[in-house]
This record gives sequence, C-alpha cells and structure tokens, in this order.
Amino acid sequence: MNAEIIAVGTEILIGQIVNSNATYLSEQLAQQGINVYYHTAVGDNVKRLTEVLTIAKKRSDLIVLCGGLGPTPDDLTKQTVAEFVNQKLVYDKQGYQRLMDYFADNKRPMTENNLLQALVFKDGQGIQNPNGLAVGIYYYDELNTTHYLLLPGPPRELKAMFTTGVIPILQRLNLQNEQFISRVLRFYGIGESRLVTKLADLIEQQTNPTIAPYAKTNEVTLRLTVKTQERLHGEALLDELEQQIFAKVGTYFYGYGDDYSLVEATIDTLKQAKATLTAAESLTTGLFQSTLGTIPGVSDVFKGGFVTYSPEMKASLLNLDIEWLKTVGTVSQECVEMMAKKAKELTKADYAVAISGVAGPDMIENQAIGTVWFALAGPDGIQSICQKFPHGRNEIRQASVMYALNMVRQTVLAATSKD
Amino acid sequence: MNAEIIAVGTEILIGQIVNSNATYLSEQLAQQGINVYYHTAVGDNVKRLTEVLTIAKKRSDLIVLCGGLGPTPDDLTKQTVAEFVNQKLVYDKQGYQRLMDYFADNKRPMTENNLLQALVFKDGQGIQNPNGLAVGIYYYDELNTTHYLLLPGPPRELKAMFTTGVIPILQRLNLQNEQFISRVLRFYGIGESRLVTKLADLIEQQTNPTIAPYAKTNEVTLRLTVKTQERLHGEALLDELEQQIFAKVGTYFYGYGDDYSLVEATIDTLKQAKATLTAAESLTTGLFQSTLGTIPGVSDVFKGGFVTYSPEMKASLLNLDIEWLKTVGTVSQECVEMMAKKAKELTKADYAVAISGVAGPDMIENQAIGTVWFALAGPDGIQSICQKFPHGRNEIRQASVMYALNMVRQTVLAATSKD
Repeated sequence: MNAEIIAVGTEILIGQIVNSNATYLSEQLAQQGINVYYHTAVGDNVKRLTEVLTIAKKRSDLIVLCGGLGPTPDDLTKQTVAEFVNQKLVYDKQGYQRLMDYFADNKRPMTENNLLQALVFKDGQGIQNPNGLAVGIYYYDELNTTHYLLLPGPPRELKAMFTTGVIPILQRLNLQNEQFISRVLRFYGIGESRLVTKLADLIEQQTNPTIAPYAKTNEVTLRLTVKTQERLHGEALLDELEQQIFAKVGTYFYGYGDDYSLVEATIDTLKQAKATLTAAESLTTGLFQSTLGTIPGVSDVFKGGFVTYSPEMKASLLNLDIEWLKTVGTVSQECVEMMAKKAKELTKADYAVAISGVAGPDMIENQAIGTVWFALAGPDGIQSICQKFPHGRNEIRQASVMYALNMVRQTVLAATSKD
Repeated sequence: MNAEIIAVGTEILIGQIVNSNATYLSEQLAQQGINVYYHTAVGDNVKRLTEVLTIAKKRSDLIVLCGGLGPTPDDLTKQTVAEFVNQKLVYDKQGYQRLMDYFADNKRPMTENNLLQALVFKDGQGIQNPNGLAVGIYYYDELNTTHYLLLPGPPRELKAMFTTGVIPILQRLNLQNEQFISRVLRFYGIGESRLVTKLADLIEQQTNPTIAPYAKTNEVTLRLTVKTQERLHGEALLDELEQQIFAKVGTYFYGYGDDYSLVEATIDTLKQAKATLTAAESLTTGLFQSTLGTIPGVSDVFKGGFVTYSPEMKASLLNLDIEWLKTVGTVSQECVEMMAKKAKELTKADYAVAISGVAGPDMIENQAIGTVWFALAGPDGIQSICQKFPHGRNEIRQASVMYALNMVRQTVLAATSKD
C-alpha cells in the first residue's frame, strides 16, 4: 500500500512551524509496512487543497491529511475533502457528546463554530481524539479504491489519535498478513556514533531484522524491526539479535520501548528497592524533581526537596554555613556532598541527589560553562563526580538531570543486587 | 511571484529527519515578498521527482529544490532537473577549483564521484557553497517563464548559500520591490476559538494586513502580516490593526514575538519592579521553578524554593502543623495560603507562589483530577484562587505553571502601576 501525507496549514508555508507531523506519520506508517512516497504541505485554501487531492488520488492508495480540523474559519480540511469525495457531513455522536460535556464541565460558553469539530463523513468512521475535541475521520472511497485519513494538526492530538484510533484501522487494512514487529532498545551514556561503531558488523550484515539507530537528546535508541508472517518466529529473531547487541553494548542499556524513559526506569528501580529519593538542585532549579513528577505514582518514592539556586538559599534551606560555602565554592565537590547530606537528613529520604554547576551565560567562581558537580548520598555513604557538558543553558540543565537520574538508577541497582 | 519548495530525500519520507529546510526557505522567501503555496517532499527517485517537477512547473513561477546535490549515488537532483529542463551539465569553474583545493589541503584522495558536486547547467548560474563542496544552481527557463533554484540539503550549507548567494538573485528578480512585514502578538488566558470570535469582524475584513491566529499549548498567538512597498507605511498599518485588536482583547496580551514566552514576560516584570519570587510546589514538583530557571539572568529575581509533594514535606519543609494540614486538606485555600506565607517568610522573597492540586491519575481528598489551588503572597497580602484544568497529568502541571506565572505577572504589574 502506497501512501502520501498532506499537511494543511498556512503556518507551515510561511515558515511559522515545522511540519513535524509528516515526520511522525512517516515513521509510524513505515512501521505498519506502508510506504510513504510524497509529503505535501498546502495552505488553508479550498482551491489549492482540492488540486492537491486530485494529484494525490491518482498516485496513492492512502491519503493521510493532517491539520485544519479545528473550530476556526481557516479550518477547512474536513469540508474540502467531503466535497471532493462527495460525502455529506454529519455529527459524530460520541464526539458531539464530548464537546457538550467539555464546555459544561468547564462552565464556558460554547460558540457555534466549536460544533464543526464533531463533524464526520456520512459513510466514514469517526476517530476519537483523546487529547482534544476535533474528531478524526477514516473514509474508504470504494469507487476509486482510495483510503482517506483526516487527523488533527496539534501533534499531541495527532499522536494520541494515531496510537489509539488509527493503528487498529491500518492493521485491518493490511491484507497480506505480513507484519512488522518492532522492538526499541534504549541506551544512556553512549553517543550514536560510538554505538554504531561498536555494532558495525551487525549493522552491515542486517537484512531481516533491520537495525535503525536514532539519536535522541542525551540518549540513543535502536529500533529492531522484523518482517514476518508469524509473530513467534519474528520475536525469536529479535531475541537473537538483541542478545548479540547486548554482548557488545549491554552495559548502556536501560529499557525497552518508544515511551519508556530514563526517569521511569529510575523510579521503577527505586520502587523495587522500596527506597525514597530527594534532591537539592542549583543550576537545574527544580528540573530534576519536576522530571520525577511527570511519572504517575512517583509519590511512593519521591516526597519533596529543595531548589537552592543562590548561595544564600543553599545556606538557609539546607543549614549550610555561608562563610564555609564562600571558601569551598558552590560549584565544588565539598558543596554538593554537603548539599546531598543535608537534604537526606532534612527529608529522611533513603537517597539524596545534589546538583550544582554552571549553566551559563556567565561563568561561576571562574569555572567554565558546562561544569557540573553531582553528589548522591545513600545508605552506604556519599559519592560525587564532576562532568563537563557542551554549551547551551537548557541543554546543560537537561543533560545534568539525565546524568543524575542514571547515577541514582545505577547506585540503587548495585545496592539491590548486593543484598 | 509564486513559489514552491521541493525537498528531495528518502530520509524525509521514512521519518528519519524533519523537513526543516522547507520551514527555513518559506520564512526567507516570505521576507523577499515571495508567496510559497506548496511544499513537497519526494524520495531520491528520478521518476517520482520528474513527476513532481511536471506538477510544479504548471503552478509555480519559482521552484526551489533542496537536497540531492551531494556525491553519493542517491544524489540525483541535479541530473534529473537538467534532463527535465533539457540543459547540459558543465563544470562550474570556481566550484571545481574549490573541490581540487579542498582535497589537496586535506591530503585525502578525491574519488571521481566528488566531481559531480561541481556540475551546473550550461545556461544557468552556479551558486557557491560557503560551508560545503556542492555548488548550487539558479536557472531561468525562458520558454516556460519558470525560475529554478537547486540548493544543498544540509541546513548549514543551505542557509549559508541562501544568505550569500540566493538573496542577491531574488532581489534582482523582485521588480515590484514588495516586502512582507510580520508582527506576532501573544495572549494568555483566552482560547483560540474565543479569541477568533471576539475578533470576528476584523478577521472577516482582513485583506492587508492579514491576521493569522495560532493555538499553542496554553496560549494563543496572532501573526499580523502586511504586504508593502515601504516599510514605514507597513508598520503604520500594523500599528493601526494592533490598536483595534487591543481594544477587544488587550487584557489577555502579554508580549511580542515568536520566541518571547510568558515566563520571560513574568521575569521581565519582576526585574522592572526589582522584586524577588519564590515558590512552594506540590503537584508541579518543581516545574514552576524549573521554568523560571530556563531564562538566563533569572538569578536577579529567583533564588530558590521548595518542592513539597507529600503532606509530610509540606509540614516539615514549610513548618506547617501536620494535624492542621489533615483537617484543612492539602488541596485547599487554607493550605496554599499558608504554604505561600511560609515560603515567603523562610526565603524573605517579595512574592511567594504556592501551587497544590490534583494531577492524577488518582483523586486526592475526594477532589477531582484537574482541581488546582493557587496562592500568591506579596507585599500587599495573600490572594488565592481555584482553577479546574482538563485531564492529563502533565497537561495539568503545565497549565498550572502558566496560570501561576500569569498570576505573578499581573499582580506585580498592578502593584507597580499603583506606585
């Protein structure tokens, strides 16, 4: 099945936003064994969108449109495609009800234009939107044997709808019964090019399964994909390849899956060890703790902590001596070790992380931007280490949080396996 | 002049890279007064690229291609377009020399395929590449009155070539001397559909300048764009439209520009007032403070604060009575007001924000997910308010941070204007 992606939105054509939806959809469709041969972006314009549809219908089996399902006058994708395939627009019952409930719950007046979001094609299928109000549409034009998918533009809505509503539809369409099984391995502490070098022979030999490395911020993933007609056989091939990979770079592996993250792995490790964690953060100003808080159920292992950005706050919130701080410096082994020790004492947590360093734009205490000290106080004492990260204030802050998470994860794992 | 952008590269179609070149080129072309009506991405495939060119030639005056100018076998843009417009390929003298010099300087053997990068059209114009070896091409097909630009794919090369080589060519073509001036207005506290409804008459009347609303997470922007032959006249038209917009929705406006954010506006307001801020965060577990920390120079107004996720941490870090907390509840007006009061006292900040609520997945104290209490203690006393946000743990946390930022900004602004 050959597909193409049409992104609708003038904001793309004037360069206001990047067409990241096309990237996401391409990746997802490839995983379903669907080839994408074209991306198009076109403005919120009935005539030009219709022309683009005319071209697409001739060359593609599946046309995926995104954007233009919202309530404003420039949202016209639904109406234009309906006209193009000669379909009447009717209300999706479930979507209509959600719209009514939403405005009732939020006690806000619903303007008429909002109802447009619940319209679907008479002979199509509504696709519910877990993160928004605009209903998506799947429609099969039997006469021309063309499949249409209409999806919302905001990436949060598009992705959630794709996962929950679109994948089941695509799997139903896949008649050959050939399936692609993917497995994502996640690594922290090794860069993409070093990972690829270490796996060079496996990557060169690859046919089925394939190995696709992908560099994300501060981590690398490997996607192993096998094409198979039989799930168990495919899984066995993936297991075998995985073992070969682990033999070379297993020490950097921390978990599976597109959505699993280092913070989740860290929290899972703490939960298994029935241990609690606190933090005293300087340059990260709460980013470490806020990252912990993104995970539901974190309250079992995290109760609270400190943001101590200035030297005075380090002194007053953590009961440190300000004169001593001035002597040792705030970006120092002595300082982070004491921060961790005090944070642990004050909160009675099992582990306490302290992070202090130079995020920029200015140097601190004559130390270079990117210099970060970490300490971790635990049941077995305190460890500390200094790292240098490449420039960029928020890149340094992010990299520091990832480093600290991994420090906690590895220390707790080691302590647990020792017991 | 109407343009379209064709990005060539299979890596875009499989979702490996985002088509950020199209975004960059769109923005640049708009600044030269050139309308971009279509983006296309197509793989490294002669047949499909030729079909895309056939479509483009019919509908656009200027076709900008990027990608596929390199030395590898899948780089075939130059050869395909040459065939399409019936042009012979010849070596660009300057580009050829640079190639020779490069390999001589680096003492590396030059493989034959590298020479492809110096090829240009016989009747075209070579465009030098300050950051790479592939020469770009400008060609005007007089018979069909179509302009072609062939640019390299790597963004560093594309951007440098555009600035140094392409802009002079476009300025030569732009006979009308028309330019587009844009201004972005940012709003918090009003949804896109309500904003559009309030501005309905202005949006319906729009011709020049135009008004483009865009919903971002928890905020809305309006891009005003004017087409003009004279900058001052254009700016005056934008000023006039802006005044009409402010008369209707000015109360929600907080700043200008694509990159300005509510947190920056809040920090700027605090700086102007020479006031400091702290926070005691429950459900946001440090996200408010970590958001402050993203802005360089925040240390003038923010020194540190508290993450008090569990009731016990609220009690111990903020000196609250745990029995009293159990009586009033942690998601309550009493609790947040006391949290703000204590945080202000303990840190001696001028303002203290407290945030406590239900992020989910479970209810707390029988209160619904999305219920969030805010308090702000300042020189003039304490104010507090309860908000209900739509579901989604991290959406609720994000929305809470934005709400709290705006609460600070408006309160400090009001206090300053009173003085």
